[in-house]
Amino acid sequence: MLFLVRMDVEIPRDLAPEVRADLVAREKAYCQELQRSGEWVDIWRCVGQYANVSVFDVAGNEELHRILWNLPLFPYMRIEVTPLAQHPSDLAAAAEDVA
Amino acid sequence: MLFLVRMDVEIPRDLAPEVRADLVAREKAYCQELQRSGEWVDIWRCVGQYANVSVFDVAGNEELHRILWNLPLFPYMRIEVTPLAQHPSDLAAAAEDVA
Amino acid sequence: MLFLVRMDVEIPRDLAPEVRADLVAREKAYCQELQRSGEWVDIWRCVGQYANVSVFDVAGNEELHRILWNLPLFPYMRIEVTPLAQHPSDLAAAAEDVA
Amino acid sequence: MLFLVRMDVEIPRDLAPEVRADLVAREKAYCQELQRSGEWVDIWRCVGQYANVSVFDVAGNEELHRILWNLPLFPYMRIEVTPLAQHPSDLAAAAEDVA
Amino acid sequence: MLFLVRMDVEIPRDLAPEVRADLVAREKAYCQELQRSGEWVDIWRCVGQYANVSVFDVAGNEELHRILWNLPLFPYMRIEVTPLAQHPSDLAAAAEDVA
Amino acid sequence: MLFLVRMDVEIPRDLAPEVRADLVAREKAYCQELQRSGEWVDIWRCVGQYANVSVFDVAGNEELHRILWNLPLFPYMRIEVTPLAQHPSDLAAAAEDVA
Amino acid sequence: MLFLVRMDVEIPRDLAPEVRADLVAREKAYCQELQRSGEWVDIWRCVGQYANVSVFDVAGNEELHRILWNLPLFPYMRIEVTPLAQHPSDLAAAAEDVA
Amino acid sequence: MLFLVRMDVEIPRDLAPEVRADLVAREKAYCQELQRSGEWVDIWRCVGQYANVSVFDVAGNEELHRILWNLPLFPYMRIEVTPLAQHPSDLAAAAEDVA
Amino acid sequence: MLFLVRMDVEIPRDLAPEVRADLVAREKAYCQELQRSGEWVDIWRCVGQYANVSVFDVAGNEELHRILWNLPLFPYMRIEVTPLAQHPSDLAAAAEDVA
Amino acid sequence: MLFLVRMDVEIPRDLAPEVRADLVAREKAYCQELQRSGEWVDIWRCVGQYANVSVFDVAGNEELHRILWNLPLFPYMRIEVTPLAQHPSDLAAAAEDVA
Repeated sequence: MLFLVRMDVEIPRDLAPEVRADLVAREKAYCQELQRSGEWVDIWRCVGQYANVSVFDVAGNEELHRILWNLPLFPYMRIEVTPLAQHPSDLAAAAEDVA
Repeated sequence: MLFLVRMDVEIPRDLAPEVRADLVAREKAYCQELQRSGEWVDIWRCVGQYANVSVFDVAGNEELHRILWNLPLFPYMRIEVTPLAQHPSDLAAAAEDVA
Repeated sequence: MLFLVRMDVEIPRDLAPEVRADLVAREKAYCQELQRSGEWVDIWRCVGQYANVSVFDVAGNEELHRILWNLPLFPYMRIEVTPLAQHPSDLAAAAEDVA
Repeated sequence: MLFLVRMDVEIPRDLAPEVRADLVAREKAYCQELQRSGEWVDIWRCVGQYANVSVFDVAGNEELHRILWNLPLFPYMRIEVTPLAQHPSDLAAAAEDVA
Repeated sequence: MLFLVRMDVEIPRDLAPEVRADLVAREKAYCQELQRSGEWVDIWRCVGQYANVSVFDVAGNEELHRILWNLPLFPYMRIEVTPLAQHPSDLAAAAEDVA
Repeated sequence: MLFLVRMDVEIPRDLAPEVRADLVAREKAYCQELQRSGEWVDIWRCVGQYANVSVFDVAGNEELHRILWNLPLFPYMRIEVTPLAQHPSDLAAAAEDVA
Repeated sequence: MLFLVRMDVEIPRDLAPEVRADLVAREKAYCQELQRSGEWVDIWRCVGQYANVSVFDVAGNEELHRILWNLPLFPYMRIEVTPLAQHPSDLAAAAEDVA
Repeated sequence: MLFLVRMDVEIPRDLAPEVRADLVAREKAYCQELQRSGEWVDIWRCVGQYANVSVFDVAGNEELHRILWNLPLFPYMRIEVTPLAQHPSDLAAAAEDVA
Repeated sequence: MLFLVRMDVEIPRDLAPEVRADLVAREKAYCQELQRSGEWVDIWRCVGQYANVSVFDVAGNEELHRILWNLPLFPYMRIEVTPLAQHPSDLAAAAEDVA
Repeated sequence: MLFLVRMDVEIPRDLAPEVRADLVAREKAYCQELQRSGEWVDIWRCVGQYANVSVFDVAGNEELHRILWNLPLFPYMRIEVTPLAQHPSDLAAAAEDVA
């Protein structure tokens, strides 16, 4: 089940540099672990912004929430979630569905 | 070069049914042709809305504009474009780049 | 899997009265059928507005989209979808989960 | 009398950890007490956000305000209240009312 | 139980003048009937706008919704409802309550 | 001359408790004094929010501004002012005016 | 008593040209009559928009509402009203008032 | 050349009182100097808000920017600029121009 | 004197094709004439939208308003104007000005 | 490939003056270096605001993101990016393209 997720990051300026570096490193490791296990399908940087748009493929709402809630940067993010469904013009779906 | 594009569709109610059907059919054909040629990488339906989010991989702004401007449903869409860049946590990119 | 859905209705004024009546009747029948089968868990009227908030319990995004897309009033609605997860303070959930 | 309530939480980062833990624990206890007494009918987590949507069943505006105002996390919440009425398509209401 | 209600009116330009006049007359009669019975406590015009702000004193959400839904101009209004509670600085309330 | 005023309060968390208590007490006294002298006609709490909606009856813009500017909590409020006029459906006004 | 008023005009495209011309002419005459009598103090065009910002000097809210409600273009305008007071830095006011 | 400018002021609470007093005094002197030299044509207080709307008559964009940028309170203001043109209904302009 | 202008176009669907073609042709001719005379410095298409952003170099607000008001597509555009000034980091300006 | 970029700057008030001066100086040097190399085509100040609008001519999204991300003031900016394409009315483009 797919979701589009946009995350806007705002790390407080007064966070100690080593705390910040640790957070960012743990965020990256966590993100890559979920890429390897297949839940975090895509991640792109929004040009000119400390933000990303991502696509998740998860079993459902509970799993998505658990993943996002446990992001090391979660306390410093504003997150928007858009549930996605198969589009009838999607080639892979074309045989089964008509718009 | 990647772009996230969201298209919200609002076809006028008074369009003749056959005109509408023709438009929707041509939109689908056009979309699938661009999937085959590789520019229209992903297309998903936004749950509960006559809208999609899509990912395009194009040579640049000019090509993206030409593709969107020629959508059969273009006159009935509200379109938002977000330019994307490689994210430093993207596994494919991990060897080259550090966030 | 639960979703909160808000539907704001705006039926065009120039719809023939019998078309309108038929639409509203089919909407009601469709809604009640989904209440009986368990997908449409709650429906409330927003006070002073031609709008409702509803709770759906479905297998996933695809099922929710199919249900909403087939609402007889779908072409005349603006719909917002909020994916829900179990709250750690929910009594039913209290034994398993800590916030 | 039913109300839909959305609460977005933002606990200040510089709150002492034990103060924060105490607040969250008291919030949970308060919420569950109101679930047991029947005023707090439903509570769900909004996926990917430190927020909940809840349904309250109270005697009226005064009672709802007293409940919300006394939430331990009230000073750190942004709250929106939507008054609800019975929907004519609600099965329980179907015998009495026609939309 | 008190509610603040704002109603913004937009009567379609192509309504026949006599239909419009009849609607406005029925709206006025309906409004004054509810003033006499005590539910519609206050009504003021917003300066420079075809809009009013009103205060209602009703038994609850159901009654308020029934009143608003039956406004002759309801189909041509955008309505916002704000539930009100007693304020602790209200003189009438000062003896019983402290903010 | 009537005005609807909405005040949203946000007292900084780091204000000393006694400073805060003093401010709130002076706000209440000031408000009640103006109720007694007739300028502050109504004050209600917005359910679930640290906010009020009020009705003022003053000689004009200058007087209203002086009253609001001198609120003890003024520095911690966001204030919106809506000028009001007599509504043609207001029973008291019915004899003199036709909408 | 002064008010800043912004008026955004949107005359329907299908108005007969002579009706439109008559409306615009009557609007101009009405506006100039109120300039001569002193209520309509200033009127400026917003660059690049079919809109104006104006300053009115009137006895109070009732008079301002009557003036705006009777604008020939009122049905085709969106109007915002900002009540104004003397500014303490205004030279004319400097002798009497300190900010 | 005329511009409408709205300035919303938010002086940080932790500014030393004498720094604040000095800023406000210098703002007032600066404002009055520009009233005397004719660039700052009008200044009004927005009722109930720490904000003003002003009219400037300057040689052009560069001069307006220099004036605003040098406001002692500039760092604590949110400023909106609306370029103005002569309105065809302005009596002074009536002889030359037809709307 | 420079201005950034954004124009969003929405030509009504029911305009006769030849009227539309004529409008668009006249818009283009008008735009190019102003490019040749130097007032319309830049014009770009916003990718994926029937909109442009443009830079104008004009004598002042009056001239800019006259140019925009006379755009053949003016009645079908939503226009936003941002006055521009020289930036202290602009190389051409670097010798004269320090930010 | 062209992009319109708007940058709104908000440097924290508590930054040490020499840190701030160094940041602003490095921002200026960085900006001018990119003007010389041709990527930063235009930069203008928005009148009355600590903000600029700029035009960039870059090889693509990746290059634009790298440039913006490395702005010395990046952590204190809110940035919006609008991808641009050639406009059919642009004189330089007139020979090749018809709108």
